[in-house]
Amino acid sequence: MPTEPFERARSADAKRAREQAILQAARGEAQKRGIREITLTDIADAVGMHKSGLLRYFETREQIFLRLTAEEWRSWAEWLLPLLSSWRSASPLRLAAALSDTLVSRPLFCDLLAHTPLNLERNVSVDTVREFKLDVHTHVEAIAGELRRLRPGLTEPQAIDVIATATSMAGAQWQMATPGPELQALYRSDPRLRHAIVEVGPRLTRVLTALLTGMADAD
Amino acid sequence: MPTEPFERARSADAKRAREQAILQAARGEAQKRGIREITLTDIADAVGMHKSGLLRYFETREQIFLRLTAEEWRSWAEWLLPLLSSWRSASPLRLAAALSDTLVSRPLFCDLLAHTPLNLERNVSVDTVREFKLDVHTHVEAIAGELRRLRPGLTEPQAIDVIATATSMAGAQWQMATPGPELQALYRSDPRLRHAIVEVGPRLTRVLTALLTGMADAD
Repeated sequence: MPTEPFERARSADAKRAREQAILQAARGEAQKRGIREITLTDIADAVGMHKSGLLRYFETREQIFLRLTAEEWRSWAEWLLPLLSSWRSASPLRLAAALSDTLVSRPLFCDLLAHTPLNLERNVSVDTVREFKLDVHTHVEAIAGELRRLRPGLTEPQAIDVIATATSMAGAQWQMATPGPELQALYRSDPRLRHAIVEVGPRLTRVLTALLTGMADAD
Repeated sequence: MPTEPFERARSADAKRAREQAILQAARGEAQKRGIREITLTDIADAVGMHKSGLLRYFETREQIFLRLTAEEWRSWAEWLLPLLSSWRSASPLRLAAALSDTLVSRPLFCDLLAHTPLNLERNVSVDTVREFKLDVHTHVEAIAGELRRLRPGLTEPQAIDVIATATSMAGAQWQMATPGPELQALYRSDPRLRHAIVEVGPRLTRVLTALLTGMADAD
């Protein structure tokens, strides 16, 4: 059967196209309502499939969102690395602002970052987690390399601590900053609750600036 | 009916006792399996009530865990404040280690801290969130006061940034450090995944030390 390799390729292409359509639908729904609210049925409806059909492409709803998280890490790295590469040096503030601005301008990434360790890595197969972790680590290493070039004296563990702080804080603080319209109204209505209004970008920039400054001092 | 006030008091006492039994059951289940896994039915079973009966005392499962979070904040503050009060001054490292150690030794608190903005504040009434936020803010202000006494020059927003970093990082990193037995085995089995093994206490101490050092420098 000489057509077999061709047909296999065509069917692999079709599979990839379908996977991409599912990921795109999940992304669209998540951007509209936040990933906490999105069920597998919502994604299936958005892409026009039955839930059972969708489960031929992905293990669980969590696997879909973990794939989106990996895509967001890549997209963040692809934005951040050329920016950092174009600099010859950077003050703590300049570097902190670059990390903070590029994270905060990605609301879906911030949403996913908070959900990853809590939920997404907990309802998928071990193989999926392995692939995800290796993938993310490639980006972390590349970003750590740029941080160390721009801040000589920063050790590898320190650079990784900076990235862990940036991404963990972006995730947690973004969740606090977007509590839904009802709570936002509450926080604005009661002066005793003004402290509950979180400004993610400024806080993240302040924290990362002090962190990078303090790490330099420890040398 | 002269017994009425007495009976009302008795019934208020009985209500409080029942609430405490529910909270205690939720705490026990959460400590065993992590709060992500615990349903309202699990709590009802553990306390020996029907789910419908339990809903006379609490709005939702999330309200139960939000009450536990408030209790954990109080317990953390009651442990931390006398310790800090007993010091006349503190280096960044000493203060960072105190914050880190007292958080990491409270696994349930770390678990709850990560779930609070993602889940717990999102499935309760606005009044419950108001009460919770005011309650937590009392502890944050008291801890911020001690931080500023020990590190003169630290501003109020800086002190609050330190507490936000400590609690957000403790929540997120604790989730990464306790991914369940299957993933723990994976991370130990594959040398390429050694970076996935997170040591919360040491990382939190390093980050908070650098943060406090860097904040002093900015003055």
